[in-house]
Amino acid sequence: MAPINTARVVFLGLGLISGSLALALKRAGWMGRIGAWGPRAPSLERGLALGVIDDYDLDLSRAVAGADVLIIGAPPISTGELLADLPSRLRALGETPIVTDLASMKGWVIDQMAESYPRFVPGHPIAGSENSGVTAARADLFEGREAILTPDAGTDLEALNWVTAMWESVGSRVTIMSAADHDAALAASSHSPHMLAYALTMALADDGLNPMRHGGGALRDMTRIAASDPVMWRDVALTNKKSLIHALTAVEDQLAVLKELIASGEGEQLERYFSICRTVRRDHDAVLNPFNVSAGKQLSESEETDKGRDAE
Amino acid sequence: MAPINTARVVFLGLGLISGSLALALKRAGWMGRIGAWGPRAPSLERGLALGVIDDYDLDLSRAVAGADVLIIGAPPISTGELLADLPSRLRALGETPIVTDLASMKGWVIDQMAESYPRFVPGHPIAGSENSGVTAARADLFEGREAILTPDAGTDLEALNWVTAMWESVGSRVTIMSAADHDAALAASSHSPHMLAYALTMALADDGLNPMRHGGGALRDMTRIAASDPVMWRDVALTNKKSLIHALTAVEDQLAVLKELIASGEGEQLERYFSICRTVRRDHDAVLNPFNVSAGKQLSESEETDKGRDAE
Repeated sequence: MAPINTARVVFLGLGLISGSLALALKRAGWMGRIGAWGPRAPSLERGLALGVIDDYDLDLSRAVAGADVLIIGAPPISTGELLADLPSRLRALGETPIVTDLASMKGWVIDQMAESYPRFVPGHPIAGSENSGVTAARADLFEGREAILTPDAGTDLEALNWVTAMWESVGSRVTIMSAADHDAALAASSHSPHMLAYALTMALADDGLNPMRHGGGALRDMTRIAASDPVMWRDVALTNKKSLIHALTAVEDQLAVLKELIASGEGEQLERYFSICRTVRRDHDAVLNPFNVSAGKQLSESEETDKGRDAE
Repeated sequence: MAPINTARVVFLGLGLISGSLALALKRAGWMGRIGAWGPRAPSLERGLALGVIDDYDLDLSRAVAGADVLIIGAPPISTGELLADLPSRLRALGETPIVTDLASMKGWVIDQMAESYPRFVPGHPIAGSENSGVTAARADLFEGREAILTPDAGTDLEALNWVTAMWESVGSRVTIMSAADHDAALAASSHSPHMLAYALTMALADDGLNPMRHGGGALRDMTRIAASDPVMWRDVALTNKKSLIHALTAVEDQLAVLKELIASGEGEQLERYFSICRTVRRDHDAVLNPFNVSAGKQLSESEETDKGRDAE
């Protein structure tokens, strides 16, 4: 096994996340060549022109041959298809590279493997953007963010350590959890919020007053991710169905509570509800907003009982 | 009437929005003195120390005496209380200053006026922050943002023109509409999104896996406004009840549609739904994100059919 920063890494699929990881590895002092495979040349050519990758091959077997590490950076269903195919393809080549992926759900992609491959380390960096494609790649995308790995008892420890070290080298903190816990937690923290943004955007698009024309910073943020990649989010919805429906139901239940409090004019309970949310949100600001912790700290709690306040 | 930029302006209530307007007026070359009234001294003292205001008075009648313009910058219910009181108080002083407000709903605050006051111009700048208080005030808060005014047939035209010019001087574009249309549009574009952020935050807080610990940029944005001022949002929920419940129901209906598509695995329809949302959101990016139009334009549409894409 080559030392961590001289290994040959090959990305299978080159987009925003995989391209950002390639850039981040280079910025971290990575010395090995970074290759890529993809189904079509244009994004790979762009990646080459932007210096994100050093070479590419449109033939999958040629692309993976000789790699120390394969990182799958494709939408979820394509990730599953690649994982289903890789073990037999690698066996034919007589190679056993470390394999990891970046997909937003873990149970479904793991289930796609037709045979066990102990050097596969399922992964998911909690980072993204409403922009897509390798041209939107950013070397700092993973700084301060979490990378979740979901190995099981059969996962090769050297592979796990290598993938852990890779994420740490680009500024992420690594969390290990089960695939089931990951999928349930991410359904609530990421997948359901995307569905909320979609539902809100569609409700506004259907409104004859065209309320989106009158949106401010609140609506900007609450709909930003409604511009996310439709294929990617279709795949998430299809492959993390059970956890996602569970998480959406929890939000629906809270909306029903709020509607009831509003309809019955329960001012005191509404204020208490909103105050709890303010505290919960502020308590997590360092996680959610790693680049803005000091700004969060500027808030003076003594301001909160003032009479003159926010008017949006 | 004094020329627009030498008028004496007095803010009734000094917080994030009113403080930002004071700073914006000064930056725009405002030459008159800017005063303030508030129920308690600390935030007024802070405003004075920060140079947001030039003087203040804790006595309401003394504070309003001699003002050319009164700008009410209090939470909605306090705004209504001040508006109910002002006409008789001003009559006792023998003065007829222009009066405007900044509250997020217009029908309810207008209804609080015990008698008609033609020089009252109901207003609402579509700008805000999850931070509160005068220390969070920013001179650029209104740049590129909309300011909605809701005069009626009895509104004094000079007062309307003056308030319009004031908002334009701080970089806003002014829209005139009826109070009813404003309240319906803002229920959809601002008030209901705040309730969604609250419901999402509470659902996450109630989840044993504590999913908020695993949040990224999506959750950061989808919960940011859940840290907003609880009193302000209690007041909005209580005073724009009917429109808000209507807007929330529209989002709930869309969530039900999405849940059904997810449950039945309708990939094609999900992708179409998400694609419509992406288009709608991008079409409104210049409104929602006035400082980021060029970044939005960097998006290459040709990227969208690439295989390697967003992984959060």
